Amino acid sequence: MPSKGSQDIKTLYKGWVAAMAADPAMPLDELRRMFDHWGDITAEPGGVDAIEVDAGGVPALWAVPKGCAADRVLLCTHGGGYVTGSMYTHRKVFGHIAKAVGCRALIVHYRRAPESVHPGPVDDAVACYRWLLEKEGIAPRHIALTGDSAGGGLAITTLLRAREQGLPMPAATMPLSPWADMEATGRTFETNADKDVLVSRGIIKAMAGTFLGAAGDPRDPLASPVHADLKGLPPIYIQVGADETLLDDSRRLAENARQAGVEVTLDVFPDMQHVFHFLAGVAPEADDAIAKLAAWVRPRLGLGQRRRAA
Amino acid sequence: MPSKGSQDIKTLYKGWVAAMAADPAMPLDELRRMFDHWGDITAEPGGVDAIEVDAGGVPALWAVPKGCAADRVLLCTHGGGYVTGSMYTHRKVFGHIAKAVGCRALIVHYRRAPESVHPGPVDDAVACYRWLLEKEGIAPRHIALTGDSAGGGLAITTLLRAREQGLPMPAATMPLSPWADMEATGRTFETNADKDVLVSRGIIKAMAGTFLGAAGDPRDPLASPVHADLKGLPPIYIQVGADETLLDDSRRLAENARQAGVEVTLDVFPDMQHVFHFLAGVAPEADDAIAKLAAWVRPRLGLGQRRRAA
Repeated sequence: MPSKGSQDIKTLYKGWVAAMAADPAMPLDELRRMFDHWGDITAEPGGVDAIEVDAGGVPALWAVPKGCAADRVLLCTHGGGYVTGSMYTHRKVFGHIAKAVGCRALIVHYRRAPESVHPGPVDDAVACYRWLLEKEGIAPRHIALTGDSAGGGLAITTLLRAREQGLPMPAATMPLSPWADMEATGRTFETNADKDVLVSRGIIKAMAGTFLGAAGDPRDPLASPVHADLKGLPPIYIQVGADETLLDDSRRLAENARQAGVEVTLDVFPDMQHVFHFLAGVAPEADDAIAKLAAWVRPRLGLGQRRRAA
Repeated sequence: MPSKGSQDIKTLYKGWVAAMAADPAMPLDELRRMFDHWGDITAEPGGVDAIEVDAGGVPALWAVPKGCAADRVLLCTHGGGYVTGSMYTHRKVFGHIAKAVGCRALIVHYRRAPESVHPGPVDDAVACYRWLLEKEGIAPRHIALTGDSAGGGLAITTLLRAREQGLPMPAATMPLSPWADMEATGRTFETNADKDVLVSRGIIKAMAGTFLGAAGDPRDPLASPVHADLKGLPPIYIQVGADETLLDDSRRLAENARQAGVEVTLDVFPDMQHVFHFLAGVAPEADDAIAKLAAWVRPRLGLGQRRRAA
C-alpha cells in the first residue's frame, strides 16, 4: 500500500494535466513556469550547499553536502522532456541523492529545446563531463551519472557521446524513470495508461517533436538509447515506478544493456509514479529508493560503508 | 489594480486558512510542514549561492549573489509567528533582496517556539549579529537588518537586545510587514479583516501565546517593540501591505520611532497582502518594493549607484 506522502506527486501531476487540458495551446513560458514548481514537493535535504558555476561554458549547480567526499562527483541531468525543468527544480532531489551517497553533485543546466534541439542537451552534458575531468581534475572512476526522465536518457546518451569523443568512461550511471524511446512504442503506454497520472503518449510525442526539431530522427541512438550500441558502458542501475507508462523504456534499456554485455540492474518500485524520487523526505518509498542508489554506487565510487547516517 | 501574479499569495494563504479551519487542532509539525511551502511561490533569484554556516552557535544560511560586495551584509530574520518558517522558506525572498542590494545575506535559523520561547529567538539573532562583528569582521556600518512578520519585529528587537549588550548599531534596519504588538490591539484587525486573507487576531493571539510561554509579558518591549524606547536606533525603513490586519503595527512602530527621534520611513503598498515580498520575480509589486529597499539601503551601506541591473 503506497504511503500517504506518496500522494503528493499525484496531486501535483494531476494539477498539471488539468491545466494542460484546460489550455491545450499553453505557451512555452507558461508550461515552464508550471514545471518550475516540480521540486516544491521535495523536502529540503538540509546541510547541502548550492553553488552556481560555469562548467565549461554550461551553467551548472554544485550541490555540496557538508562533510562529503569532495573528489567524488555525481553528474546529474534533470528531467522535463528536454523542454522544461532546470538545475533549480532538481536542486533538492539531487541534493538528497548526493547527501545519501556522500559526494558532490553537479546539476547540469543544459540548454533546452526548442532553443537548443538535439543534440544540444547531450553536447552540454558532455561539456560538463569533460570539464569535470579536465578542469576539476576528477578521476573518471570517481564520477557516476544520474538523471531522471529525459535526464535519465541523458544519463546514457552522455556516455555514448563521450565515447565518440574518446573520453574515458565513468564508474557507473543511474537512470531514474528514464525516457529512452522518442517513438513512444512501449506497451506500457497502454497497460499503465490508467495508472500513470502524468505521462501519456501524446505528451511524449509532443516533447519528442520539440526536442528533435524538424530534421531529427526519432531512432537516432543518441536520442533514443533503446537503439544504441551500449557495449563498453559502465554498470547501469535503473529505477522506475511500476505504474509508469514509461516502464517499458526502462525494461528495453536494461535488455539492450544485457545484450551488449553491460552489467545492469533494474529496480521496479510498486505503485510508484514517474520520478517518484521527488518525494524525497516526504514518502518512504523515495527515501528507500535513494538509499538503494547510494548503497549500489558507493562501492563503485570507491567509497566504503557509511560510518554515520545519511 | 493589483497584478495577476499577486494573486498567487492569496491562493496560498487561503489554502492555509482552509486547512487550519478544517483541522483547528492541527499538530505543530503539520503546521510547520504547511508553512515550509511559503517560499514555493517565489521565483528563483538565480545567481545566488546558498551556503549553510554555524553563526556563533546558531545555524544560518548565507545567500551570496554572484559578484556582490562581500563585506556588506544583510542580517535577515524570517517570519512565521516565531513558530514556523526557516532559513529555507526564506532563501529565495532574501536572495532577491540581497541580489538587488548587491551584498550577502545571512538568514538566521533561530530556534522557534515552543521549543525556544521568548527571548530565545531574539538572543539567537543577536548571537548572529555578534558573530558577524567579531568573527567575520564585518563593520557595523556595513550591516543592515531586515526581516518579515515576526522577523520584522526581530529586525527591531535584535537592535534593542544588542544595545543592552553594548554592541554598536548597524547602518539601518528594514522591517517588512512587521508584527510588533503581541496584544494585537491594532484597529486594522477590524478595518482590514475582510481584505487580509491570512492574518487574524485569533492567529496572532495563538502565536503570541506560544512565543511568550507561560511567564511571558505581552507588553515586554523586547517582544512588542511598539512599547520599546527606540532612541539611538539607526534609520528604519518599513514596508507593509495596505490590506494587512497588521498595518497598524507598522504605523505604531513608525510613530514610536519618530517620537524617539529616529529617522523612519513607512511605505504602504496598495492592495498588498502580508509579506507580499514573497512574490519576488512573480508580481511587479514585490519587485518594485525590493527595488525601493535596495535604493534606500545602498547609500546607507556605503554602496554607490548600481552600475548594472540587479
